[in-house]
Amino acid sequence: MKRSIEDTSIVFVGAGNLATHLAKAFYRKGFRIVQVYSRTEESAKALAQSVEAGYTTSLSDLATDAQMYIAALKDSALASLLPVMVAGREQALWVHTAGSMPMDIWKGRTHHYGVFYPLQTFSKQREVDFREIPVFVEGCNDEVAAFLKEVAAALSGKVYEADSAQRERLHLAAVFACNFANHMYDLAARLLEDNRLPFEVLLPLIDETARKVHELSPHLAQTGPAVRYDENVISHHLQMLAGEPPLQEVYRLLSRNIHELRQQDP
Amino acid sequence: MKRSIEDTSIVFVGAGNLATHLAKAFYRKGFRIVQVYSRTEESAKALAQSVEAGYTTSLSDLATDAQMYIAALKDSALASLLPVMVAGREQALWVHTAGSMPMDIWKGRTHHYGVFYPLQTFSKQREVDFREIPVFVEGCNDEVAAFLKEVAAALSGKVYEADSAQRERLHLAAVFACNFANHMYDLAARLLEDNRLPFEVLLPLIDETARKVHELSPHLAQTGPAVRYDENVISHHLQMLAGEPPLQEVYRLLSRNIHELRQQDP
Repeated sequence: MKRSIEDTSIVFVGAGNLATHLAKAFYRKGFRIVQVYSRTEESAKALAQSVEAGYTTSLSDLATDAQMYIAALKDSALASLLPVMVAGREQALWVHTAGSMPMDIWKGRTHHYGVFYPLQTFSKQREVDFREIPVFVEGCNDEVAAFLKEVAAALSGKVYEADSAQRERLHLAAVFACNFANHMYDLAARLLEDNRLPFEVLLPLIDETARKVHELSPHLAQTGPAVRYDENVISHHLQMLAGEPPLQEVYRLLSRNIHELRQQDP
Repeated sequence: MKRSIEDTSIVFVGAGNLATHLAKAFYRKGFRIVQVYSRTEESAKALAQSVEAGYTTSLSDLATDAQMYIAALKDSALASLLPVMVAGREQALWVHTAGSMPMDIWKGRTHHYGVFYPLQTFSKQREVDFREIPVFVEGCNDEVAAFLKEVAAALSGKVYEADSAQRERLHLAAVFACNFANHMYDLAARLLEDNRLPFEVLLPLIDETARKVHELSPHLAQTGPAVRYDENVISHHLQMLAGEPPLQEVYRLLSRNIHELRQQDP
């Protein structure tokens, strides 16, 4: 199995947000994307066209001669489609991109396998700078790990090896730092919308909150009524949220949680 | 009451994070800070020195001839100290900086009053660019409102008028968008720390999550297992958090909450 970065031919199994951004990043770096598979023709075709690849909506038509297959699917789809997609393509390198799926899902199915996990939030509407995205790779052996590091380094300046246990921790931490943080923005937006205040007034605050943790630990960076345990403000806020029980529940739980963590400080 | 921006003399009642950043911003713009009050001499002195002002730890020694008094105190301290600090200084303009305190706390105590509310998170260790900070002002009459807008415009490019009801909404939204979002970073940091992974690997994700909502609404920007309602991932994450009940509770509540909001989409 002799491979070099320059002539690596890639098939994408999946054409969602992550697959789209990743395929485009590979394409721009000169990798050959030979084919894109998606269940829906529209998605397969759209991505295939933007990276000059063929496309298919049928796994039985998946190319058999690519060097690297990147499965970027929802976890449940990955598990169920895996036997079908690998069959007859056992000599290629297979990787998935899922934070929470162990590498061993490939074991016994194929010989060369690994994981290629870019830690970022991808939306179709937004371009991202792949150089800045940490990529965590894992290989079934040293040769594969080294190859994946080389491939990752072609796209990103931040390449790490991480085993499956570390990767699932990273994914869990990312749910907090990204999805849940974004949910807090969403709830804030709703609170303003109800009072016809524009969401934009919060952007400098959101930006500074993110910038701050480049210099201070989030724990040290914390401010606000919960960390001061300003009971007047907290109980007033809970009253304001009386008509919105889900927001009130979030406010109560997180304020208590922030205060409890502070109590544990040395 | 004829005032011009250039000769406005200011007393700061309070020397915490907000008072410190605000006093320095005024000082840099050429306003005269005549005095700083704080309960603790160390804080009073530190801020006073950096803005070439006098200082006191006793409200009875508060200057009587300043034009504008800015009370930047914890809400409970503001309420209890208010009568003492105003007495004998009723001709000056009094403002507070608290998001959740109504303007009317000044009513009946003094003639000229208002609110000067910069919407930002302030930490002593970090410099902030005041030009980018939205400042919400409220005045007891049109003259005071106009004056406060002029003062605010000397510091910030983003000056708005907001009444007390709008301001308390802004403050509540800020708790979600800043304090609670930062708490999500803190929980993520803890999850990584326990596995000896550096927090820095999350910074590109945190930055992109914040940048995204400049272009997309937070609701549209949402990604991750909760919005996809990927039950395998969610239940796996809940298992991973079994040893950390507070984090598990946060994970469960927020995932449910994200999913429920998605269900309400048209």
